Amino acid sequence: MTDLYSSRCEAQPHLLPRHDPVVYGEWTPDAPLTRAQMEQFDSQGFLILPGVFDKDEVASLQAEVGNLLADPAALDDRTTITEPGSDEIRSIFEIHRQNDLMARLAADERLAGVARLLLDDDVYVHQSRLNYKPGYQGKEFFWHSDFETWHVEDGMPRMRALSASVLLAANTDHNGPLMLMPGSHRNFLACVGETPDDHYLVSLKKQEYGVPDETSLAELAEAHGIVAAVGEPGTVVLFDCNMMHGSNGNITPYPRANAFIVYNALSNRLTTPYGAKAPRPSFIAARDAEPVRIRKGRLA
Amino acid sequence: MTDLYSSRCEAQPHLLPRHDPVVYGEWTPDAPLTRAQMEQFDSQGFLILPGVFDKDEVASLQAEVGNLLADPAALDDRTTITEPGSDEIRSIFEIHRQNDLMARLAADERLAGVARLLLDDDVYVHQSRLNYKPGYQGKEFFWHSDFETWHVEDGMPRMRALSASVLLAANTDHNGPLMLMPGSHRNFLACVGETPDDHYLVSLKKQEYGVPDETSLAELAEAHGIVAAVGEPGTVVLFDCNMMHGSNGNITPYPRANAFIVYNALSNRLTTPYGAKAPRPSFIAARDAEPVRIRKGRLA
Repeated sequence: MTDLYSSRCEAQPHLLPRHDPVVYGEWTPDAPLTRAQMEQFDSQGFLILPGVFDKDEVASLQAEVGNLLADPAALDDRTTITEPGSDEIRSIFEIHRQNDLMARLAADERLAGVARLLLDDDVYVHQSRLNYKPGYQGKEFFWHSDFETWHVEDGMPRMRALSASVLLAANTDHNGPLMLMPGSHRNFLACVGETPDDHYLVSLKKQEYGVPDETSLAELAEAHGIVAAVGEPGTVVLFDCNMMHGSNGNITPYPRANAFIVYNALSNRLTTPYGAKAPRPSFIAARDAEPVRIRKGRLA
Repeated sequence: MTDLYSSRCEAQPHLLPRHDPVVYGEWTPDAPLTRAQMEQFDSQGFLILPGVFDKDEVASLQAEVGNLLADPAALDDRTTITEPGSDEIRSIFEIHRQNDLMARLAADERLAGVARLLLDDDVYVHQSRLNYKPGYQGKEFFWHSDFETWHVEDGMPRMRALSASVLLAANTDHNGPLMLMPGSHRNFLACVGETPDDHYLVSLKKQEYGVPDETSLAELAEAHGIVAAVGEPGTVVLFDCNMMHGSNGNITPYPRANAFIVYNALSNRLTTPYGAKAPRPSFIAARDAEPVRIRKGRLA
């Protein structure tokens, strides 16, 4: 069978058409998004939704983040990723299985219910993590499409997944916010090169394979522009699995923090990786595909 | 005699009052700035002036930058500074002595005339440089006050100097623009530690001494906020010598380029460094103090 999204196989990059829908569900008057929001997600590939979580909920989540960062020994140590050249924690993976409040967050209707609407299927958490970009020394994260990695290294068959980032600190233009190229999700950028074994051990700190080339990035930026996903704590940023995104470093005193949950359609569960010998560990890419039981109401 | 701006001498940082005026000159109806602009420079420490140089002038300057970057062998090789870990040029110093158009720019009434008004003295070029932050891989420049370095390492006696940055590429919120803390110029942050010999050889790439501490930076940011000096090519950003400023890295495809000229009051010419054994070379900090002969009209 032909791999529609083959990548890291050739010496030249290619910009290929997307073969999958972006929005799978139909809008109804009861939907948790407006019709215009669904259309925007379809055409632009992202939504910025301010004030989804209220002040008290944000305070609870922030306190929990403080606890997690203060006691990394309580976590599965494979799941904590430090900054390049430092011991400072940059990400904690699988937070929805290591912390009750994060589990509740991942099941929240305002995230999982919206994912179910857009993907028109039961959803499961493909990956969850807490991202923490410290002040003063936060490093950049280069442009990439998550789907490229999830397809090649994890075996995600098609584009039927999305990410929800819950902002837990103010993300401003100055502290290295997520940058998106709106509309870039409608093409697939096949990257050059091969994937080495155990790539994930270094790629979570600094990507060296599956990296978009500069010429293609310049074309995408010219065609689509660049938007920063800024907002106050409690804002939710949703974006398609194939969105080209990245972030600059952060010399400001203001850390950037978010809880990040990737929902995949149950029908799109992982299979054999399309470009790596062995799949990455399940704390990075869940292979058990347990459907989220959606929870209504405010966070406890 | 007591050094009012002693720095790098103690184990603890100190935030000291500024003992010098910011604006030395008086506004008159013939002044090249409005009264409000002079007041803003006084209170905020900076001015962003769009459209100072027109499209044709910008095109000439950009072409000259292309020539300079394309043929570094034609330059005094001490004056070209590369990115950390790469051969890509980050800065070219002393451009006003290595290139006729840059010499004309440094003498332009729209820069030097404004500097003379604000500093109320004949002015000379203390330092000039072309800054080029490449796309994709541009590195951050950590927070600092230029005056701290110019005083300690070069022997600039008092705060009576300012910088003019002529934007030669669009500086947006996304491509690592200059960030300023408005009002921070009214305090002097005495940094900790000592200055090693030949510090400039590494500090132009990555500052390790005379670096503001994180606690003081957080206080300054809370008190003053952070503003990005964004604008189209041809914009001029003027800022006081003691402004706390820095910039994030740049992963976008869009390089950031500017011509940067520091004007010092003739009466404030350099003396013995206040904290280093030997002054830095003259291509970084001019010791001959030749007054600018101000030129009117458009760039040739």
